[in-house]
Amino acid sequence: MKLYHLVLRTVCIGLGKPSFGLIRQSDNPISNVTVSHYIWRSSSTTNWGSNKHRIRQVQLTRKLAMTDPAIEAFLAPLRKAVKEQGDIVKQLKADGAGDIDLQRAVAELKHRKKALEDKELELSPKDAFDRLKMEDLLKQKFFFDQSFAIYGGVNGLYDFGPMGCAMKANLLQAWRKHFILEEQMLEVDTAMLTPEQVLKASGHVDRFQDYMVKDLKTGECFRADHLIEATFEKMLEDKKIPDETKAEIRRLLPLIDGMSKDDMGRTLREYKMKSPITGNDLTDPIEFNLMFATSIGPTGQIKGYLRPETAQGIFVNFKRLLEFNQGKLPFAAAQIGNSFRNEISPRSGLIRVREFTMAEIEHFCDPSDKSHPKFSNVENLEMTLYSGCNQMDGKPPEKKTIGEAVRSKLVANETLGYFMARIHLFMVKMGVDPARLRFRQHLSNEMAHYACDCWDAECKTSYGWVECVGCADRSCYDLTQHTKATNVKLVAEKQLPAPISFYIISSINLIAILMSDHLNTYHKTIDVTECVPQKSALGKVFKQEAKLITDYLTNVATDEINSLEQTMNEKGSAEINIGGKSFSLTKDMVQVKRYQKTLHVEEIVPSVIEPSFGIGRIMYSIFEHNFRIREGDEQRTYLSLPPLIAPYKCSVLPLSQNPDFNPFVQTLSSALTNLDISHKVDNSSGSIGRRYARTDQIAIPYGITVDFDSLKEPHSATLRERESMKQIRAPVSDLPQIVKDLADGRRTWEDVLNNYPVFEQQESTKAD
Amino acid sequence: MKLYHLVLRTVCIGLGKPSFGLIRQSDNPISNVTVSHYIWRSSSTTNWGSNKHRIRQVQLTRKLAMTDPAIEAFLAPLRKAVKEQGDIVKQLKADGAGDIDLQRAVAELKHRKKALEDKELELSPKDAFDRLKMEDLLKQKFFFDQSFAIYGGVNGLYDFGPMGCAMKANLLQAWRKHFILEEQMLEVDTAMLTPEQVLKASGHVDRFQDYMVKDLKTGECFRADHLIEATFEKMLEDKKIPDETKAEIRRLLPLIDGMSKDDMGRTLREYKMKSPITGNDLTDPIEFNLMFATSIGPTGQIKGYLRPETAQGIFVNFKRLLEFNQGKLPFAAAQIGNSFRNEISPRSGLIRVREFTMAEIEHFCDPSDKSHPKFSNVENLEMTLYSGCNQMDGKPPEKKTIGEAVRSKLVANETLGYFMARIHLFMVKMGVDPARLRFRQHLSNEMAHYACDCWDAECKTSYGWVECVGCADRSCYDLTQHTKATNVKLVAEKQLPAPISFYIISSINLIAILMSDHLNTYHKTIDVTECVPQKSALGKVFKQEAKLITDYLTNVATDEINSLEQTMNEKGSAEINIGGKSFSLTKDMVQVKRYQKTLHVEEIVPSVIEPSFGIGRIMYSIFEHNFRIREGDEQRTYLSLPPLIAPYKCSVLPLSQNPDFNPFVQTLSSALTNLDISHKVDNSSGSIGRRYARTDQIAIPYGITVDFDSLKEPHSATLRERESMKQIRAPVSDLPQIVKDLADGRRTWEDVLNNYPVFEQQESTKAD
Repeated sequence: MKLYHLVLRTVCIGLGKPSFGLIRQSDNPISNVTVSHYIWRSSSTTNWGSNKHRIRQVQLTRKLAMTDPAIEAFLAPLRKAVKEQGDIVKQLKADGAGDIDLQRAVAELKHRKKALEDKELELSPKDAFDRLKMEDLLKQKFFFDQSFAIYGGVNGLYDFGPMGCAMKANLLQAWRKHFILEEQMLEVDTAMLTPEQVLKASGHVDRFQDYMVKDLKTGECFRADHLIEATFEKMLEDKKIPDETKAEIRRLLPLIDGMSKDDMGRTLREYKMKSPITGNDLTDPIEFNLMFATSIGPTGQIKGYLRPETAQGIFVNFKRLLEFNQGKLPFAAAQIGNSFRNEISPRSGLIRVREFTMAEIEHFCDPSDKSHPKFSNVENLEMTLYSGCNQMDGKPPEKKTIGEAVRSKLVANETLGYFMARIHLFMVKMGVDPARLRFRQHLSNEMAHYACDCWDAECKTSYGWVECVGCADRSCYDLTQHTKATNVKLVAEKQLPAPISFYIISSINLIAILMSDHLNTYHKTIDVTECVPQKSALGKVFKQEAKLITDYLTNVATDEINSLEQTMNEKGSAEINIGGKSFSLTKDMVQVKRYQKTLHVEEIVPSVIEPSFGIGRIMYSIFEHNFRIREGDEQRTYLSLPPLIAPYKCSVLPLSQNPDFNPFVQTLSSALTNLDISHKVDNSSGSIGRRYARTDQIAIPYGITVDFDSLKEPHSATLRERESMKQIRAPVSDLPQIVKDLADGRRTWEDVLNNYPVFEQQESTKAD
Repeated sequence: MKLYHLVLRTVCIGLGKPSFGLIRQSDNPISNVTVSHYIWRSSSTTNWGSNKHRIRQVQLTRKLAMTDPAIEAFLAPLRKAVKEQGDIVKQLKADGAGDIDLQRAVAELKHRKKALEDKELELSPKDAFDRLKMEDLLKQKFFFDQSFAIYGGVNGLYDFGPMGCAMKANLLQAWRKHFILEEQMLEVDTAMLTPEQVLKASGHVDRFQDYMVKDLKTGECFRADHLIEATFEKMLEDKKIPDETKAEIRRLLPLIDGMSKDDMGRTLREYKMKSPITGNDLTDPIEFNLMFATSIGPTGQIKGYLRPETAQGIFVNFKRLLEFNQGKLPFAAAQIGNSFRNEISPRSGLIRVREFTMAEIEHFCDPSDKSHPKFSNVENLEMTLYSGCNQMDGKPPEKKTIGEAVRSKLVANETLGYFMARIHLFMVKMGVDPARLRFRQHLSNEMAHYACDCWDAECKTSYGWVECVGCADRSCYDLTQHTKATNVKLVAEKQLPAPISFYIISSINLIAILMSDHLNTYHKTIDVTECVPQKSALGKVFKQEAKLITDYLTNVATDEINSLEQTMNEKGSAEINIGGKSFSLTKDMVQVKRYQKTLHVEEIVPSVIEPSFGIGRIMYSIFEHNFRIREGDEQRTYLSLPPLIAPYKCSVLPLSQNPDFNPFVQTLSSALTNLDISHKVDNSSGSIGRRYARTDQIAIPYGITVDFDSLKEPHSATLRERESMKQIRAPVSDLPQIVKDLADGRRTWEDVLNNYPVFEQQESTKAD
């Protein structure tokens, strides 16, 4: 989700230039699909080469209903290939190899990993998932659809219809309860319009970009890396291209991700690449910032952007939030809201869009203490962890408890581990299949330079593994950046323990304290270097501007004071620059003081642990994981959403259009409304079977049917459960509360089945 | 809220040119304050003139604790002045007077109304409201504050902190329950980025604008009307200005609102107006569109805007929503989301901002049937209605039931009345003081030309009456506009009753039917005029473009067919224009067919009733209506928010920092979390009185205190209520459920008081 992390991450891979390819690949799980294509084709040396072979392979897999050991046999050579390359990368790093060598080795490693992963996906047991069928259902029932379709639509913009919107609202409400209420986080709701300075400081203005090329005649734009890749793939299929060129292309293909702007330009020219649509010539690669620009206010002087993430709105409010929390660390702030990214070529439905809802948490804590008081609540939770080591070694993900992972230092600290566990619990509660959920650790060369550990919660979908939640330890990067840009200290005060003499302690405790590490953090004595502006001297020379200089001097850092002093001593005066204007200071205007000071509090820049949720991607994964087809009826598709997030909790259906049923339907509907249960009355003329099928399609978990027995005293109606299609009969007056308890998870369907007579009249499984 | 309505409204006032002044005034209740200033000054003829006089007036009012009849005596001359002018306007209209005369008369009427309203506000009983004190509280407790303050802030952008954000989330959740769940509305969540075509069709691109002038040297911008007004006011105070100039200025002041661009330019030049800040020369007035522009996608070819309202996202989805509703009318769709307006000079805190949350409902219904099935549920609700008639006659608002108002045709139809009543109920439930809530009808010359009735829910605040919710019958305007722009029919099918022969009916019923009006709406026979393109003839001449012409001809309207045919008959050929290109058609290419057709369904463009909520303005009004100061302690301010929207429902306070209290605090906190009750534990070291005062400030309605008696069996704790500060003692295990029932409104505090022993130890009212 957070492309931003991924962008900044490039700084840390130790290479001379930013290399966006590394980013794009991990950020865009979708590109896996494309990547896998040419791996099939280009890696013919490993015998998986031809498409024909591939098809045979798939048939084989299906026929054999392959067992785990058999799958492993297929995967073994790929695992070995990854490990070999992983070892080469490690060795190159140990040897301090040059940038280019390392870059190539890493690119090759990533592609071997991808080949392995694609093969695993290929061989894993196939459920009969049919994406087109699911998309039909989602469109037809207006869960979501393209925005402005009557105007031809805009790529990358989607509207949620009544069903998608209700599901999203339920999901966000559940998120609030699961995270904000549970941890008493401070939720904020900050502006989307953001002035340039803020995003300059955060790094987005300079580095949040992709490369594109334009058709010289039509102006149509393409992502440069996508275009090079596609052209290469086409060339490999072209019989007229000589073999040695193909060999060179095969060598270059895995390097695209690591190409600089110049590399791409060279490649485009060398292979005379043209627009795939018109055949026209193309421009050189152009940096394209992914933020939407606008202008705030009438003068056009305040340049602004639509925020690319919600996190910055929290960082710029850090001081207020800390004050709200009475100055105490740790605390967490959270925000749910929309962000915007002007993708060059959006695709893959809800997964890569231009406007999307995020939910982000920034947990601020003491960098020297990342323990978490509630870690023990989750330490026994077993999760699927795909460590960086296993990725380098070509090994599969492993199941282990988060307690084990933190104890063995695989996960950097308790707070990070606590949030990973809470994310896992949330995802599963929302309907993500735990067997299709894993946490993948960023490799050290994928991670932002400031981050010490980062894990992505990924969901397996028909597009491959999709990053749905990022969970990173961002250290103090953001607060430091905003402090630099504004001169406003974004720090917390940490109380240092008082000197021993202030304590009344027993001698045994005293010894314990003396022996402990804590001793080092008692009241701290530090060296202070300070500028004391000489106001009268400054005033004489600079008049009204003297105050500007005074303010500047009292905030100047130690290093600068030293160099200022040195210059003045050497040259008699020194220049300073304030807001673009230069002032010449002489020695009589500044006195430099040096002394020692005992600190009772220490100022610290908090570390930030950031779980960041892409709501659209999570929803998409939930759709895929909960799409079902009734056994024996290919046409009868439905969504098996958990009641918690189902758009409606209950349907109320009169058996027929007999008007005698109406009072019961109305009574039930009012009672459900009073209990805040969203529900749908369907009194249309379809058969009851057809109407059940319709309610299944929009994921309604429970259905009350008013029938002829309802008219007799004692009045009763039937209650049907979506998954089992079983029904019970209960008094009309009991039913709303039963549904409420079921929907809130306070009662199980089994319990209801055991307490009320089963209603035997089976519905037809056909949508009649 | 919906400046848009107000903008389009100008079309209907029957004047030659749009006059944004009329709009601005009613849209910006804040400008009332300014307006009232110069009315005090400029209307010296009515003896309310001088500031001195004004102050005396206020003192008098306070001293006398004026009774209603006494107030009326003061208001009578103002009421009379309004009525006189209202009669003049009516007469001018009846006489078909010229635009300019009418425009002046209307402007004068509006100013007399304003003078009356200001006087009423002035004389109404003063509560000791202190806005600065309230703003201090809201800022200090971070309900909301300016965005990007560490970067110097951006005008018109606000961030909601934890308290404001929780309150807003609660308010929106309550809105969802009150409107969406109750009426089973279809909620959608559509894109904020909007392509230009959509907003071109809706009228925003051309007409959603204000006029500004720029400082020629610094580029600083001012709203032209504000600047002229302010300059005039300053001139009236200038002793050097001759009396005849002042008289002319007094004549012009009430006309500013109605000034065209040219009028303003002339006035600026004539009075040699300069920048009030630098004294520099100014540009002529420039149209400034209030939408934020951006560019979607990399080519820069899709021009887009941030939506200025959420409504358009519903209209463009009308077809899908109608389908979702199985083609049936009426139904309502709703959306909660942010909108954006690039105000030239935002001010007045949350009331006039550049980014804001709206909640809008579009209720689609048959234009010939605006009855509402649930109207009887609300018809006896008494509301304060300020009718257009009363406004014209200088009379005050009246209290009447909505049933009465609809029966007497004061409110145009049941559906509009139903929503007005539901809005009233919602506002009061959220904490708006019913005595400071009124519904003001738009005057016929304020209303959009397509609207047949429009009422604003206005809240009285220290800024005057603020429009918080608009409730308009927009007729079929929006759907028609989008149909025109896209050629996609946004209509519903209305089933016409079948011919009598299809019915099996008794002769008595037959007579009844024959006698009824229904007869007219049986299957309808209509005249059809149709173009039949002659494909071969067209193909020969126009080749590939023939299809374009064929499509055009099959969609052409009857009038156009007739004129096309006539031209061809007269001249032998006729020109048609498709997408900017012209084609010459001859008679052999088009055959015109005329026949009669019986319709079983009729296509209708639904009417739209639109309640539109400005969430920020509602929140601001709630803040003002619920800001309190404890009797006898000026420093002890608090917010008396209803539990439903209070950020936290409950506090948990240990009496002191004694560690024995901790297990009880933790048990209570977990139990509250399990019941989904947001709460705050305050175990800081302040006295219990100080901590109560703190929880009052953030509007926490209930507080549980763990004290030394809690340690004894049976364990109990105290429960305090914010308003009365009364306390009871109850078992620790009972307390979470008691709080839940109180917070959900299922139990009253009186009931709790009657069932548990009162805890007598009174807290000090002082924040000790």
